[in-house]
Parts: sequence; structure tokens; C-alpha cells
Amino acid sequence: MKLVTAIIRPEKTDEIRQALENYGVQGMTISQASGYGRQRGHTQVYRGAEYTVDLLPKVRLEVLVEESTCDDILDVLISTANTGSAGDGKIWVTNVEEVIRVRTGERGMAAV
Amino acid sequence: MKLVTAIIRPEKTDEIRQALENYGVQGMTISQASGYGRQRGHTQVYRGAEYTVDLLPKVRLEVLVEESTCDDILDVLISTANTGSAGDGKIWVTNVEEVIRVRTGERGMAAV
Amino acid sequence: MKLVTAIIRPEKTDEIRQALENYGVQGMTISQASGYGRQRGHTQVYRGAEYTVDLLPKVRLEVLVEESTCDDILDVLISTANTGSAGDGKIWVTNVEEVIRVRTGERGMAAV
Ligand SMILES: Nc1ncnc2c1ncn2[C@@H]1O[C@H](COP(=O)(O)OP(=O)(O)OP(=O)(O)O)[C@@H](O)[C@H]1O
Ligand SMILES: Nc1ncnc2c1ncn2[C@@H]1O[C@H](COP(=O)(O)OP(=O)(O)OP(=O)(O)O)[C@@H](O)[C@H]1O
Ligand SMILES: Nc1ncnc2c1ncn2[C@@H]1O[C@H](COP(=O)(O)OP(=O)(O)OP(=O)(O)O)[C@@H](O)[C@H]1O
Ligand SMILES: [Mg+2]
Ligand SMILES: [Mg+2]
Ligand SMILES: [Mg+2]
Repeated sequence: MKLVTAIIRPEKTDEIRQALENYGVQGMTISQASGYGRQRGHTQVYRGAEYTVDLLPKVRLEVLVEESTCDDILDVLISTANTGSAGDGKIWVTNVEEVIRVRTGERGMAAV
Repeated sequence: MKLVTAIIRPEKTDEIRQALENYGVQGMTISQASGYGRQRGHTQVYRGAEYTVDLLPKVRLEVLVEESTCDDILDVLISTANTGSAGDGKIWVTNVEEVIRVRTGERGMAAV
Repeated sequence: MKLVTAIIRPEKTDEIRQALENYGVQGMTISQASGYGRQRGHTQVYRGAEYTVDLLPKVRLEVLVEESTCDDILDVLISTANTGSAGDGKIWVTNVEEVIRVRTGERGMAAV
């Protein structure tokens, strides 16, 4: 089992969620975060004033996936999250040793 | 060392926390999340109107545990988080390579 | 690739972030959390009244790092987060199997 964590643009959340559901993803966890990538310290002009790009609001999406579907799910995520502009996000994959569905006590693939 | 992540019903937080403390767990991290499992898209009736079940508020609980106590802690979590109704939650376990207690610099089991 | 997760004092966030940037870290993710460590149940006196230390607000910092810089980054984190008082925080390191920079599709070290 793998855990796919994606830091995405908040305004992309619904579209990404829909694309994952269309693929067949049956659950996900979402939380609020903020962050920045390589453009830190980069100055921008907003309403005439120059300001330093700081922590930008992001959504953190977590999806438990079976190993066999992980690559496909990454493709869905990348193609939906991508706008071509800086700040499109970061995705990382970690190994999960055990998953449990609390109501039924099921473990492993059956629990996702 | 393992990291146990549990997505639980918010109203269960205090009871689960108490049960973990009774078992001997000495620390935990809690954050707000939202999510859904297999009932996505399922319609329900609320105050006479049909609506689609959406992201439900959840609490995300993280507990660093020694490998030797991990199974027991999963049992405590499952038995306390379970109500028998859909939405009881998901638990997953990942491997942790290093843990540090910042104040003392201790590492490994001594740091948890 | 490694993921370094640090639970830190909120008031230390800017200083820690600055120290990481000075070291060369090019991105990070921050979210709000709360928690407690070994002082749970410890009573303190605040404005004359005794109260039980409960969940304290914390910041959760996540940094994807190359394996070769991980130890240095832990040193930066520990030395900046440490005040010598209880509650300085906890840091843990997990293995990351894949990292993707969404805009470019880059993977691995190039994506961090
Ligand atoms: N090294 C990192 N560790 C943890 N989180 C990161 C890291 N880099 C970026 N992030 C998270 O990903 C979010 C989006 O990053 P972003 O897309 O700006 O990455 P980038 O490498 O700067 O790519 P781009 O050039 O397309 O902007 C950040 O707001 C932050 O939350
Ligand atoms: N595949 C998944 N990936 C990440 N998080 C998930 C996943 N499935 C569920 N979750 C998280 O767990 C929470 C609880 O899920 P839930 O208990 O409804 O799972 P379920 O499999 O639908 O079981 P049940 O039939 O008992 O409802 C969700 O709100 C979501 O935050
Ligand atoms: N076992 C644990 N699992 C998950 N998170 C933890 C654990 N222990 C502590 N934390 C997180 O780290 C934060 C800071 O912990 P804290 O620094 O108080 O650890 P401690 O071991 O009690 O050390 P100290 O004696 O210096 O206070 C907590 O608020 C909590 O969010
Ligand atoms: Mg960027
Ligand atoms: Mg469900
Ligand atoms: Mg403490």
C-alpha cells in the first residue's frame, strides 16, 4: 500500500477530487496547509506595491492507494493539478505498512 | 519506530486520547482534516432535502510508537474509534527512520 | 529522498524557516496542529488558577530533503527549535519513494 500526498492549489481541489473519483479512488483526506517552493523571496507586484512572496495557502491531499494503481493515480494528479505556472504543487509517495478500516476491522487492500 | 496515523470522528477525540493515555502513550499530534470514504456521492436526506455526502470534518491523530507496542496501540484505537456506523475512520502505519526529542537531543526509542 | 516532519513551537516558525533557507532548503509545507508530549496531565498555574496542561498549539513543518543533506538539516532544525524548556518539539524522518514537481513533471532529486 502507498500513501500519495499532494500539495495542490486550493482552487484546484474540486477538479482534482473529481478526476480521482472518476478514476475510481474511493476515499481521500484533505487538510489546509501553506508553503512555498523555489520562488521563495521572489518579489511580486500586487496593487502597485512590491511584496515578497511568502507562505501561500495550499491544500494537502492524501490518498491511500494500492501499489498497482499508484502510477495511474499519479498521472491523474499531475495532469489535473498542472496549470503550467509556478506553484502547481509537489507530490510525494511513501510506503504504508498497514491500513485498517475501523468499522469492519478489515486490513490491507480490503481496507482502502 | 512507527508512525500511526488515524483519521477519526472529531467527537471521538477525547475518548480516544484518554484510552491511548491509559495504555501508556506519552504524546500525540492532532490536526483538523476533512475527507470521505466509500460513501462518496451517496445521497442523504437532511431536514427534508436530499444532498450529496461531501467532505466530512475529521480529526487526524498521529502517534509515534515503538514497534513492540504498535499492535496493542492499534487495538486500543480500533476498539475506541469504532461505533459500527459508516465513517468510523481509517488508520495507517508507516515506518519512521529517526525520531528526535528537540530539548534533549535524544534519538530513537528514548525520544518518543 | 526523505521527509523531515517537525512539530515545533509556533513562535519559532519564522526563525526556523529562515535558518532552513540560509542552509539552502528551497521549499517547505506548514500546517497548524496541536499536541502534547510527556508533560500530559502536568498541572500549571496560570493567572492564579491551577489547570491541566492540555493540547498546546503547534506548527507542523514538512521538508522534503535529499538524503545527503538530511543530517545537516536535522542539525539546523534542532539547534534553532531548542529553547531548553519542555515542549521544544519532536522531529521524525520517513523515507520517500517518489517526489514529483507538478509543473515540470520532474521526478526524484530534480523535483525537490
Ligand atoms: N522541499 C519541499 N518540502 C516540502 N514541501 C514542499 C517543498 N517544496 C515545495 N513544497 C510544497 O509544495 C507547494 C508547491 O510548491 P511549488 O509548486 O511552488 O514547487 P516548486 O518546486 O517551486 O515548483 P514551481 O517552480 O512550479 O513553482 C509549496 O507551497 C509547499 O507547500
Ligand atoms: N483511500 C483513502 N485515502 C486517504 N484517506 C482516506 C481514504 N479512505 C478514507 N479516508 C479517510 O478516512 C476517513 C474515514 O473514512 P471512512 O471511515 O468513511 O472509510 P470507509 O472505507 O468509507 O469505511 P465505512 O464504510 O465504515 O465508512 C475519511 O473521511 C477520509 O478522511
Ligand atoms: N509520541 C508522539 N507522537 C506524536 N507526536 C508527538 C509525540 N510526542 C510529542 N509529540 C508532538 O510533539 C510536540 C512537542 O512535544 P514535546 O516537545 O513536549 O515532547 P516531549 O517528549 O514531552 O519533550 P519535552 O520534555 O522537552 O517537553 C507535541 O505537542 C506533539 O504535537
Ligand atoms: Mg514554486
Ligand atoms: Mg465511509
Ligand atoms: Mg513535552
